[in-house]
Amino acid sequence: MSKKTGFTPPWYAEPTPEGSFRSLFKWADLAELKHPNNGLVEYLIEKFDLNQAHFAAPLNLSLEQVPDDQPCSLAPEHLEFLRQTCSPENLRTDTYERAAKSYGAGMLDALRLRRKMLENLPEAVVAPRTQEEIEAIVRYADEKRIPIYVFGGGSTVTRGFEATRQGSIALDMSKHMKRVVSFNETDQTIEVEAGIWGPELEAFLQNAPEQFGAKRAYTLGHFPQSFKASSVGGWIVTRGAGQNSTYYGKIEDMVISQEYVTPRGILRTCTHPRSATGPDFDEIMMGSEGSFGILTKATFRVCRWMPQNRRKFSYMFKNWQDAQDACREVMQAEIGFPSVFRISDPEETDVMMHQYHIADTPADMALKALGFQPMQKCLMLGFTDGELGFSINLDRKIRQIMGKYKAFDLRLAKVTETWERGRFTDPHLREDLMDYGILIDTLECGVTWSQMPRVHAEVRKVIKARPRTICMTHISHCYPQGGNLYFIIVAKMDTMREYLDLQYDILEAIARSGASVSHHHGVGKQSAPWLEDQIGAEQMELIRVLKKHFDPHNIMNPGGTLGLDMSPDQQAKRWSKDLEG
Amino acid sequence: MSKKTGFTPPWYAEPTPEGSFRSLFKWADLAELKHPNNGLVEYLIEKFDLNQAHFAAPLNLSLEQVPDDQPCSLAPEHLEFLRQTCSPENLRTDTYERAAKSYGAGMLDALRLRRKMLENLPEAVVAPRTQEEIEAIVRYADEKRIPIYVFGGGSTVTRGFEATRQGSIALDMSKHMKRVVSFNETDQTIEVEAGIWGPELEAFLQNAPEQFGAKRAYTLGHFPQSFKASSVGGWIVTRGAGQNSTYYGKIEDMVISQEYVTPRGILRTCTHPRSATGPDFDEIMMGSEGSFGILTKATFRVCRWMPQNRRKFSYMFKNWQDAQDACREVMQAEIGFPSVFRISDPEETDVMMHQYHIADTPADMALKALGFQPMQKCLMLGFTDGELGFSINLDRKIRQIMGKYKAFDLRLAKVTETWERGRFTDPHLREDLMDYGILIDTLECGVTWSQMPRVHAEVRKVIKARPRTICMTHISHCYPQGGNLYFIIVAKMDTMREYLDLQYDILEAIARSGASVSHHHGVGKQSAPWLEDQIGAEQMELIRVLKKHFDPHNIMNPGGTLGLDMSPDQQAKRWSKDLEG
Repeated sequence: MSKKTGFTPPWYAEPTPEGSFRSLFKWADLAELKHPNNGLVEYLIEKFDLNQAHFAAPLNLSLEQVPDDQPCSLAPEHLEFLRQTCSPENLRTDTYERAAKSYGAGMLDALRLRRKMLENLPEAVVAPRTQEEIEAIVRYADEKRIPIYVFGGGSTVTRGFEATRQGSIALDMSKHMKRVVSFNETDQTIEVEAGIWGPELEAFLQNAPEQFGAKRAYTLGHFPQSFKASSVGGWIVTRGAGQNSTYYGKIEDMVISQEYVTPRGILRTCTHPRSATGPDFDEIMMGSEGSFGILTKATFRVCRWMPQNRRKFSYMFKNWQDAQDACREVMQAEIGFPSVFRISDPEETDVMMHQYHIADTPADMALKALGFQPMQKCLMLGFTDGELGFSINLDRKIRQIMGKYKAFDLRLAKVTETWERGRFTDPHLREDLMDYGILIDTLECGVTWSQMPRVHAEVRKVIKARPRTICMTHISHCYPQGGNLYFIIVAKMDTMREYLDLQYDILEAIARSGASVSHHHGVGKQSAPWLEDQIGAEQMELIRVLKKHFDPHNIMNPGGTLGLDMSPDQQAKRWSKDLEG
Repeated sequence: MSKKTGFTPPWYAEPTPEGSFRSLFKWADLAELKHPNNGLVEYLIEKFDLNQAHFAAPLNLSLEQVPDDQPCSLAPEHLEFLRQTCSPENLRTDTYERAAKSYGAGMLDALRLRRKMLENLPEAVVAPRTQEEIEAIVRYADEKRIPIYVFGGGSTVTRGFEATRQGSIALDMSKHMKRVVSFNETDQTIEVEAGIWGPELEAFLQNAPEQFGAKRAYTLGHFPQSFKASSVGGWIVTRGAGQNSTYYGKIEDMVISQEYVTPRGILRTCTHPRSATGPDFDEIMMGSEGSFGILTKATFRVCRWMPQNRRKFSYMFKNWQDAQDACREVMQAEIGFPSVFRISDPEETDVMMHQYHIADTPADMALKALGFQPMQKCLMLGFTDGELGFSINLDRKIRQIMGKYKAFDLRLAKVTETWERGRFTDPHLREDLMDYGILIDTLECGVTWSQMPRVHAEVRKVIKARPRTICMTHISHCYPQGGNLYFIIVAKMDTMREYLDLQYDILEAIARSGASVSHHHGVGKQSAPWLEDQIGAEQMELIRVLKKHFDPHNIMNPGGTLGLDMSPDQQAKRWSKDLEG
């Protein structure tokens, strides 16, 4: 259809003005754009029972400048201390900067910003230049009971650093705290400050011969969709996972040691690859989401950068169960693990077929004739990494396993290549669609293979109970024992209440079906009300014990993160604000 | 020489009498024996400046029965409670049983037992039948302030469960708490009670088709030298590593979830393969060494049992630096990891050449002519595991890397096969040699590749400063970022003071050179005085915080383990007893 009608909505195609509300929810670079293609638009028109008129003009582009009208209520002596400590140019109290360092990339953030709802702003944003400055600030804040929120890259989708307590400051790690501390080619490790962003770190590693006089080029292997707008500190404290995690591991597999500034003092972990000297304190601090202290430095293991060895593959399955079973078999076959490894469920496959302009083509008809039916068939895509012989053997063994499940080899269609091109820019689609009242949200969870069919069914049941709602699901981080289930919800919604009702229902369904509340987004303030139910009262109590130890006066990211000191509304899984707008 | 003289000392060759002191320090099965071969004996005679007369008759076989002369001082009502809770046949108060469940397999244990020094005995040994019984005992003991020590397999070499506090009970997990709770072939996981021993668990897994109606045979892949006499609970709480850990991982890589009974209550961790829901509590409990609570159940990931795919290899290097570099290159090449991967330093290689009867043979002469000199050359051995194509590629790539270092391929000499035959029985050698005053002890540590040469040199310097002392070193657990260094010390020693002086000097050298105090033996009461220096005051404080939370009345393995409530002597790195005997 799309190709026939050739209809293109009048997408907003200008660079987003600096200082505007739009710039606060715009993904990554203000000049970068990626519009939904016609295939996707036609699909939405059909599924949501819309027409082209719906896309005649955007609802609200939020191009207005953020007024500088929120007074800073931090006591003058506190401001003076921050100015003295970090130099005046590193202290900001204007409304725009305070909003920019409190709002993240979640749908709720965008909904509020589009409605010009500015709440939960820190009183000031300070950008320390050194760890010593951070230590001084934490000591002062602890003494004066000033809440501290830490900004890394701003890509939270769980309201991770939202300044929900009054009278707080935001610590901006992204301005200065982004140096390479040391690179050790013998051990294949790099120590960096926590504010460094993905592309900056990868530029150092992939150019290690020029940067460090190294013999080889390296990579961290951590490529989350937020790659362009997230910091290593954020990755660690939320236990993030990149799209290549099936081979390279989650961030916790990459971290060798860390250094935190906490109200209790400095905690530096050990650099030995493994030890038997009591509990592993790296694993206590990873996932602490800013509640225990401020991550200032981390040492990572790095891998060799050998993209020339990659073998790309994609397959189509007749149904979801076959796809899961084949994926599991690959992960359990002891052939090594593919790098990107991703299976889409029938509905996500259907969307991709339209988005990639494959639906209803002769190729699609041929697939149908072979028994691969729409809304049943499932797409798998991925690629291998590692040494060439390893990579070739793995690719060959994957093909053998796929053959067993009678999957159709799509290698020639270059599906993986198409997916790769969009992997870091797809978040832009959200801005355009929201301009027309269509929301995209994502929720994800960790599951065992045995749990997977049930979790998938329960969550879909909740989402599909809502009329005209798309629910795309994929498995994108795999282990021999299970993986994650990643749900993408697309729907036309008019109020925040509609959005939150659905989000809460999904979180309930995830918890009810026995999955973990998050596989790699973290808990933040969004999923906190479901945390204790999932991990149990005893583990929750341990979080509180650690919190009390590190941060006895509750100044570190207070107000709901990780289920710590939640508001009564949060505890009751309720949103207190006016939601009808 | 050995083959020429054909001298064999009169080794003790009878089954060890039950109830004897010897049975308490005898390794594993009382009937199993493995005598040092003539090559080794001649080597020791030469190195220690001894003669055959030294081996004319054993010093002290300790065949005497342990007298039942240690009164049980536990209050009658406590005994009655234990009898009522666990049934009378599961409560023992005789001296022998109390010693058997307090002493481990460390050299200090053997030295004391050979001297008939029975100290630090629990008042009673109770063998609970269910988790409910354990819960009842912990509640009661917490209320009555009765210290609890937990016995799993008895193979500690760090005085892990030695009952150093008076008035305690030992909890024997090895009698009843060894059932399989569940097996899940879809997820490739097994849940077992913590008292199950290595061979029992492997028998279940390797016979999974018969045992569980499974499609395949499985393995945990955890084969420590203590395999035959250690429990899964011990492996976990000490963070153990098996000899195949380079492929299968350390025990912490195998654990999916755990259940502990603590004075605070029951802690059960989650079974999702990965999550982003705060700290990882599995990693807090692993390494807790009985100080936080009693591990009752654990869920492990299992792997496919495919020994037919193994490729065995061995190589000789001209020097220690080449061997380390080649080992590192294998670990960093992204070709997958070998399963067993072990490099011996020049002195260990020299001992093995004699022990395996290769020294001074024509083959050895030929090696010498090629530039592989005694006390310089280094032996590497190992094998691959995993799927066949993976295994073949890995073996081939290892051979390529070895070629780069001009290592000599020893495959035809079947060195790995010889090593394999002795891998679980070598501990028997210690009994025979001790009968003639020759002690063997081991200490190990975790190091980065950059640290390795320094740690190796510093520790050797300390050991070799002692006249007539053999120091064999190997790397036996490897990572891309480093490995462990495992030191085996062999010397003729007459007093416990001599032994402890050396051990303390070695621990000092390990700490001074920046290595971790242990890679896989754990800390126990032996290395506890060095723990805080290594991990730092802040991490030590965290251990105390967790201890206080789980065990506020300090009943769980009290008296020095993990650096918690050490005695003044322990804190001063001093041994209080008479050591001149």
